[in-house]
Amino acid sequence: MELSDTLTKAKLSKLMSELGKNASAAGRAIKYAATEQKNNALLNAAEAIRSSKEKILAANSLDIDYASTKHIKKSLLDRLYLSDETLEGVAKGLETVANLPDPVGQVIKSWEQPNGLKISQVRVPLGVIGIIYESRPNVTADAGSLCLKSGNAVILRGGSESFHTSQAILDCLHHGLKSAELPETCIQLVPTRDREAVGHLLTMADTIDVIVPRGGKSLVERVQKESRIPTIAHLEGLCHVYLDSSANLEMACNIVLNAKMRRPSVCGAAETLLIDRLGVDRLLPRVAKKLIEAGCELRGDITSQTLVPEINPATEIDWTTEYLDSILSIKIVDGINGAIDHINNYGSNHTDSIITENILNADKFLKEVDSAIVLHNASTQYADGGEFGMGAEIGISTGRLHARGPVGAEQLTCFKYVVRGCGQTRP
Amino acid sequence: MELSDTLTKAKLSKLMSELGKNASAAGRAIKYAATEQKNNALLNAAEAIRSSKEKILAANSLDIDYASTKHIKKSLLDRLYLSDETLEGVAKGLETVANLPDPVGQVIKSWEQPNGLKISQVRVPLGVIGIIYESRPNVTADAGSLCLKSGNAVILRGGSESFHTSQAILDCLHHGLKSAELPETCIQLVPTRDREAVGHLLTMADTIDVIVPRGGKSLVERVQKESRIPTIAHLEGLCHVYLDSSANLEMACNIVLNAKMRRPSVCGAAETLLIDRLGVDRLLPRVAKKLIEAGCELRGDITSQTLVPEINPATEIDWTTEYLDSILSIKIVDGINGAIDHINNYGSNHTDSIITENILNADKFLKEVDSAIVLHNASTQYADGGEFGMGAEIGISTGRLHARGPVGAEQLTCFKYVVRGCGQTRP
Repeated sequence: MELSDTLTKAKLSKLMSELGKNASAAGRAIKYAATEQKNNALLNAAEAIRSSKEKILAANSLDIDYASTKHIKKSLLDRLYLSDETLEGVAKGLETVANLPDPVGQVIKSWEQPNGLKISQVRVPLGVIGIIYESRPNVTADAGSLCLKSGNAVILRGGSESFHTSQAILDCLHHGLKSAELPETCIQLVPTRDREAVGHLLTMADTIDVIVPRGGKSLVERVQKESRIPTIAHLEGLCHVYLDSSANLEMACNIVLNAKMRRPSVCGAAETLLIDRLGVDRLLPRVAKKLIEAGCELRGDITSQTLVPEINPATEIDWTTEYLDSILSIKIVDGINGAIDHINNYGSNHTDSIITENILNADKFLKEVDSAIVLHNASTQYADGGEFGMGAEIGISTGRLHARGPVGAEQLTCFKYVVRGCGQTRP
Repeated sequence: MELSDTLTKAKLSKLMSELGKNASAAGRAIKYAATEQKNNALLNAAEAIRSSKEKILAANSLDIDYASTKHIKKSLLDRLYLSDETLEGVAKGLETVANLPDPVGQVIKSWEQPNGLKISQVRVPLGVIGIIYESRPNVTADAGSLCLKSGNAVILRGGSESFHTSQAILDCLHHGLKSAELPETCIQLVPTRDREAVGHLLTMADTIDVIVPRGGKSLVERVQKESRIPTIAHLEGLCHVYLDSSANLEMACNIVLNAKMRRPSVCGAAETLLIDRLGVDRLLPRVAKKLIEAGCELRGDITSQTLVPEINPATEIDWTTEYLDSILSIKIVDGINGAIDHINNYGSNHTDSIITENILNADKFLKEVDSAIVLHNASTQYADGGEFGMGAEIGISTGRLHARGPVGAEQLTCFKYVVRGCGQTRP
């Protein structure tokens, strides 16, 4: 494979159509592969990751060097960088996916009609999946392994800065596939940095069944605008924690601190703290103190600034900003209804949490906040496929069709109806 | 409401944005409506259909007159025409939907994580649905009632020839909604025949969550091409019956006859008959005789023509034609593999049936034919939400995302994850 930053139109077109043809053929092969065969491929790939550690880290150094010349943000460099430890995490992730139940062939429901027809709804793979993601080399393994487990062929398009690392990880996945006598083309990586390749992928409706864009807002918006293929979209995570007046103060402090500061850059990190006006005197000063001590910048409305002078003023734009950083906006609201209205107006339907000792308010919040994940007395940072028991995940879907919330192996399947009769004809 | 065939751009734009605003507000109201309230609306609407019978039939006469001047196909006129009997069917359909279980709030799955978090996956409405359909006035009631039952607001765009009938049926639905103290705007009909309205609907991504195109191939293709909103598509039904060499002859005759001739114009009607070469001498003559006696034209390959002289020659185009008429194409194939290959190549992933006494072949067919519905020893005409026990249906989805096969009330919902904790923070 040859690395190239731009290709001629004709060359790119030929390359992409070849990827598509390979993926269709591989999709037919992997669709009915035995569970054991798929699991062996994953376990052998994990071993290959371990035994190729030096090669992968060398490839990662190349990518880091390249990225450094492009003056990209430090947080992006952090995501690109692989250590011994993160690489072991990649290997363990493959083993986790191998140990998940196989979704393919699972019977979701079955029943018998009065006329004797026996109907089952059975899980089947989606077919060929296209995944477009940022420069996070571990996604190559996560996405590849989840597609393999769920019986799908996949075309991966990783961020251009992670090109060599992704390729080195792909080599390990291919080793696993080959050792399990499955086609290597079950997992393909677009072998060029040419940015036109993304546009191409989005038009390949004849071969690709679903596009999963995973990355920044602009990528997801571009995909939703241009794609001729159904998408499972992952928009931003504008997550809220709401402190109800009856919230336990100790719990409120712990959860808000965790929701914001455990990892401020993940999509499940809280961006706005809402506090019931009736509880603000009791709750805000202690919560704010904890956050400030942890190095978090606070931006709040007038009321909150009066109570805690360290809080900077917030403007309208703060309610719609996904900081992905150690910044939290704070707004005082009129009880549970004010909180729900704010979240449904400004949120991104991702993940929101209420802290309260009042069960009625908790139930109201869980019912009326229109987000993929709603929590009571728990941190928004639990928005994660692993924490939901799904093994790995490709991301958190904020769309409403097909998959909502964490997208794991099961969410990469559809179903068919299998009907068994004994000669029935319809009257 | 004023009937108009074309509107100025500005007028249309204003009209559509008003529909959208109404639908958003209605969606918020219907989302959490009590089951009983929704059911009362449906039952009262059914009564209104019965008591408004004469008004609806008069509106239908107007539409029939208008359609007749446009020289549309007889099969389309048939679909437009309402009799006393079909109208009673519409009322009964509303009652059936009222009696279905409410999908909203159903717990699909629930489990507890080792850290004590209790997670439930709970069904919620999709939001606002746009449905575009042909001139079949009964769809106004079917689609409206399913959306209502599933807690969604809906904007309906029916075929222009059914304008008055749809409006008269809508009045009954509105009566039901009003009597149950639900906003009438839960179910809206685009109040113009202007064809530009469809294009408008497809861009209303801010208010409409899902588009369901239900109609001819060209409509569905247009929607898939133009829509900025996720769609649940219903493409054509190119359905097959495959007679395996071990098929019971009597059963084969009954099922093929039913699959083709019960109602040749429905999407679950068989269009191609495949017969195993090893069984063709035994099976084809009797099956062909039955079909010909029932008035079906047969088009077959050379082998079939040799066996049954009444069979006309088929060309390549016959394998990809949805006749929706009393015509059946016939192809002799090399056993189960030949049948599966033909169906996966030429079919539309809709509904396909195998007739066989060989259980291994049946299982292979059910597994490897990549269609929404696969049957063993039963007629393809069972491809129907009602026959699946779903009450009514909006159509049969041939897509792979979200809904596949019959789209009933449950398929018009998505879900959210509800997580209950006691102070958990993520390590």
